[in-house]
Amino acid sequence: MAKNITPKEKDYSQWYLDVIRAAEMADYAPVRGCMVMRPTGYAIWEMVQKYFDDAFKETGHVNAAFPLLIPQSFLSKEAEHVEGFAPECAVVTHAGGEELEEPLIIRPTSETVIGHMYSKWVQSWRDLPILINQWCNVMRWEKRPRLFLRTSEFLWQEGHTAHATKEEAVEETLRMLEVYRQVMTDDLALPVIKGEKSEGERFPGADNTYTCETMMSDKKALQAGTSHFLGQNFAKAFDIQFQDKDGSMQYAYTTSWGVSTRLIGAIIMTHSDNDGLVLPPRIAPQKAVIVPISTSGEKLEKEIMPKAAELKASLCASLGGRFTTIDTNFHMRPGDRFFSHLQKGVPLRLELGEKEFAAERLRAVRRDTGGRIDIAWSDAATAVPALLDEIQKNLCGRALEFRRANTHRAESFEEFKEILEKEGGFVEAFFGGSKEEERAIKEVTGATPRCYPFENEGERGKCFYTGREGARKAIFAKAY
Amino acid sequence: MAKNITPKEKDYSQWYLDVIRAAEMADYAPVRGCMVMRPTGYAIWEMVQKYFDDAFKETGHVNAAFPLLIPQSFLSKEAEHVEGFAPECAVVTHAGGEELEEPLIIRPTSETVIGHMYSKWVQSWRDLPILINQWCNVMRWEKRPRLFLRTSEFLWQEGHTAHATKEEAVEETLRMLEVYRQVMTDDLALPVIKGEKSEGERFPGADNTYTCETMMSDKKALQAGTSHFLGQNFAKAFDIQFQDKDGSMQYAYTTSWGVSTRLIGAIIMTHSDNDGLVLPPRIAPQKAVIVPISTSGEKLEKEIMPKAAELKASLCASLGGRFTTIDTNFHMRPGDRFFSHLQKGVPLRLELGEKEFAAERLRAVRRDTGGRIDIAWSDAATAVPALLDEIQKNLCGRALEFRRANTHRAESFEEFKEILEKEGGFVEAFFGGSKEEERAIKEVTGATPRCYPFENEGERGKCFYTGREGARKAIFAKAY
Repeated sequence: MAKNITPKEKDYSQWYLDVIRAAEMADYAPVRGCMVMRPTGYAIWEMVQKYFDDAFKETGHVNAAFPLLIPQSFLSKEAEHVEGFAPECAVVTHAGGEELEEPLIIRPTSETVIGHMYSKWVQSWRDLPILINQWCNVMRWEKRPRLFLRTSEFLWQEGHTAHATKEEAVEETLRMLEVYRQVMTDDLALPVIKGEKSEGERFPGADNTYTCETMMSDKKALQAGTSHFLGQNFAKAFDIQFQDKDGSMQYAYTTSWGVSTRLIGAIIMTHSDNDGLVLPPRIAPQKAVIVPISTSGEKLEKEIMPKAAELKASLCASLGGRFTTIDTNFHMRPGDRFFSHLQKGVPLRLELGEKEFAAERLRAVRRDTGGRIDIAWSDAATAVPALLDEIQKNLCGRALEFRRANTHRAESFEEFKEILEKEGGFVEAFFGGSKEEERAIKEVTGATPRCYPFENEGERGKCFYTGREGARKAIFAKAY
Repeated sequence: MAKNITPKEKDYSQWYLDVIRAAEMADYAPVRGCMVMRPTGYAIWEMVQKYFDDAFKETGHVNAAFPLLIPQSFLSKEAEHVEGFAPECAVVTHAGGEELEEPLIIRPTSETVIGHMYSKWVQSWRDLPILINQWCNVMRWEKRPRLFLRTSEFLWQEGHTAHATKEEAVEETLRMLEVYRQVMTDDLALPVIKGEKSEGERFPGADNTYTCETMMSDKKALQAGTSHFLGQNFAKAFDIQFQDKDGSMQYAYTTSWGVSTRLIGAIIMTHSDNDGLVLPPRIAPQKAVIVPISTSGEKLEKEIMPKAAELKASLCASLGGRFTTIDTNFHMRPGDRFFSHLQKGVPLRLELGEKEFAAERLRAVRRDTGGRIDIAWSDAATAVPALLDEIQKNLCGRALEFRRANTHRAESFEEFKEILEKEGGFVEAFFGGSKEEERAIKEVTGATPRCYPFENEGERGKCFYTGREGARKAIFAKAY
């Protein structure tokens, strides 16, 4: 166990921060609530971005860039939206040495300004659908910041689409939710539950919000991504009208959907252990590190390092990128060198010492299980990618197992409270309550409805809280 | 000539805006001076980013993300820096519903906050060099905005490195200038002149600024990218100290370097014509468009479209991406369809009509020359990439020719003024004047020293303005 990392059983919050610090992923910025993503952390974000961006483009979306600053008055055009976001806004009052006539807010999300632009671009049904995404920074002032999970500024993508019909817009909302699920499961090794948000958890201004929910290793829930069906709310507020095929003027239907750098928090809390960061290979910027070891400078220079360079080139080729590095920290002891890679979550360490050199092999050490495997040089180009696949699967499977083992059913509020107190985790229960009842449950237990899951969504039963019949299956949990 | 585009000979500024509007590249945002990059424009930026980002990584740099907001007091820590940037800052005074104790500025550039973080990260010579880049948005309030060229918010990359010695830092400054030159010439088809900035044109806080200067089609200069040697100025202002090998404490030497979305303005103004946008193939998100044409719906459906789809798949494979599309705007007349691709700058139009179908070929039309070439289907996968290469070379060669033809030498201020009045373009002249004399020349002629070019940099002569001997060769021009 790492001396510089607090065990998660002792203090989960401190463990989380220690993992981030030890891996040099992020640091607090001089402005309260803001974060610096250091190269190790940002490189993971680049990997995450690539998978999502490819999936967006594969489904016909294009990227664009909308402005950082939004006139304050825009926010008020959608009543629920302003109520939800105004308290969190950062406001620019002066610029270019003068006081501004109208204050500007730094975007907390861009439905308003994008709605304004779409109203200019959309004239006819032929201009629809608009399928645009943007990768950018947004600002929501945080009173209780936490690296990656809640920072005043964060990076994200926000997709904003406009459609001629309600059916198309609903279909798009659900399509993007499925894209999220797929990338999260396949690439980030985060098993997620797709579902619909309750009224109390809906995006301000949406008719309906859908979510991917995932369980952290402390059994709390984390909302990994959401997709909103906005109905005609923003189209009416910003006048996105088009002439339909029959000549009549119609309001468009819009959607929005986003994932953010908090996904990195989810990855950390799902997979890491008391030695530090554990990364699923598909999103690890460094998938394998070759560690040449010898006390003889000559052997290193003449034999081991040239072989390491050769193996690195072959692995980079077979992995398709700069995904393998060579550790040249010869001033450190081997154990410390190993440890630095453990802490940074490198999925596979490939030791190349004198013994391995003589036997023409590498000693591979898995980050997920600690398992050791000898690999012949001649097999490395196929064995390493295969091992990485195995690690990826193991991490995702392990997380799914953990979630299943920590999900319980409750029939009554008594049972519900008991599960949360004794076990924690996810509670499955039929729920037919209102926004006010959601709040009351949260006040007593700290748990909120995470979603009405899509799985078996036809099922109905008696509400565990109100006793009403015909309630839908919901999942409750304490959440980040 | 396009009816919706003002000829550049008539009104160059209007032509520029018309090209952008016709290609749907960008739009003004509701906040004065800010811009929306529409999908066509942003996709070009994504291509540009990729080439630079690859080159940065190839030279050992990593990406990170520093915060948008900077405490106002940070700016004042470097005297020249605050003088240069304070007047252009946007200031956040309120956040989270409260007035802030200290106002925050939106980064106009990040030397200050990055200097602050580096001072925490650097302890020993082993922590150096730090080779970090970030892709982000910055804000410099603009009184006279112009799409892509001068907008209050713009996107850019800023590299920030710290080194143990002056030599290493200077080497880095020049290495990145060369990376810029290479990507600009090879990928953006912008022939640039590398050189050193004069005292009056230096970055506020730099010991030395180097630049890549390029000529637009109205003969004015555009600074395409700069690389700064910052000496120990920011290291001293932000206390970036390290323990050297000999145990002594030293200040680091730092550099910074950046290119921005104004490069897109440079691309437009270098290559485009009175029909609209012309894009060098290597940065065109859509390199070829297949235009199926027939008045017979049946022929289209049964013969031409399936063949178009097959050719598209084969071209996407040979071009390595989603770089070929099929135009399905059958409700438009062929001429209007052709025209829409001209205006968007698609390098190659591939017509597939009934005649072409019968002959098993495509009619390729080059955007740069209007030249028409028949290509057999069986040759397309090799002929199209070859044609695109030829277009790329032609555009870069043409721009270089234009610059050479519009560069003149001046021996005296009289000659200098005459050239600028009659011919415009670049003026090569020996110059040994001061910052004040630069300003005086600008007041009379509108021209500024663009750089002391590296080519034949040993040459010395008599200053055209002061008559002093031993002056260096400089290039002057009116500039964007």
